[in-house]
Amino acid sequence: MKFCSQCGEGVTLAIPEGDNRERHVCNACSTIHYQNPRIITGTLPVYDDQILLCKRAIEPRHGLWTLPAGFMENGETTEQGAIRETWEEASANVNDLALYSIFNLPQINQVYFFYRAQLSDLSFGPGEESLEVELFNEDAIPWDQLAFPVITRTLQHYLSDRKSGEFPVRTEDIIRKR
Amino acid sequence: MKFCSQCGEGVTLAIPEGDNRERHVCNACSTIHYQNPRIITGTLPVYDDQILLCKRAIEPRHGLWTLPAGFMENGETTEQGAIRETWEEASANVNDLALYSIFNLPQINQVYFFYRAQLSDLSFGPGEESLEVELFNEDAIPWDQLAFPVITRTLQHYLSDRKSGEFPVRTEDIIRKR
Ligand SMILES: [Zn+2]
Ligand SMILES: [Zn+2]
Repeated sequence: MKFCSQCGEGVTLAIPEGDNRERHVCNACSTIHYQNPRIITGTLPVYDDQILLCKRAIEPRHGLWTLPAGFMENGETTEQGAIRETWEEASANVNDLALYSIFNLPQINQVYFFYRAQLSDLSFGPGEESLEVELFNEDAIPWDQLAFPVITRTLQHYLSDRKSGEFPVRTEDIIRKR
Repeated sequence: MKFCSQCGEGVTLAIPEGDNRERHVCNACSTIHYQNPRIITGTLPVYDDQILLCKRAIEPRHGLWTLPAGFMENGETTEQGAIRETWEEASANVNDLALYSIFNLPQINQVYFFYRAQLSDLSFGPGEESLEVELFNEDAIPWDQLAFPVITRTLQHYLSDRKSGEFPVRTEDIIRKR
């Protein structure tokens, strides 16, 4: 951030009065521009014993497999965002959503939400951001071709919890080694 | 948003190629400026049977009672943010945090996180954004003087769940009547 989005003049990093960390503050109109973490929301779509995964058509991790997920938009709930992203990336309808996993990624200012969901029918296929969309049995999951640690962890939790039929909300911090 | 934070020129609302909703797009450098929901994170601090509440020294809801909470910052986890806000608003140390309630407020683009937490000791008091900080027994909770529905709902869930000793993560959407 170099310029004020309200008046177009320059901004300076400074600690505002009553605050305790640096913010971008406008030199002209004094607006304080806060920057905050963003939410990524998605689903773990299930059909009988199978799990739906999408092969990414975009960077990062082009060609690797992911659960359908993306940035939460203003005006929607995390659940509505998860349904929307599942439609956009996999042309799939889901129902019976239940919050399942939450990940903090503080180094990249992201918080992930995944919902367990039932695939409503077998009509699905790649959206603009996917190369392929497929259902996988447990023994076919491409563990060495998964796009992100949050995907691996969510699938591991799910396959483990499925044995007991209990699915408590799983929370985890993903800290990258430097 | 009226000006580009990257180059200072004007922005226009337009639907970028491959997107499906209006964004602020720079007329000069074409930067797309996304706006996303923000996370508010806090704690429900408990000491024996008592719950800590803060009387707000700031608007909105000046003079009403709240749980300590505030905007999550870049570079921290939701749990770290909850601990920080508890310190800033109530000068209180907490431990043994467990994620407890999550609220979507889509009309104001906010997602709330509350953690159950143990108050580490009886050393607490008002920070800059609080007028008073007090411990309340269940029968003393000022139900008609609570600042926000998310506070009321979190306390209601907690007092109900406390009877069974089971505290599943509670998720709820708060939709304002128009
Ligand atoms: Zn300005
Ligand atoms: Zn620009």
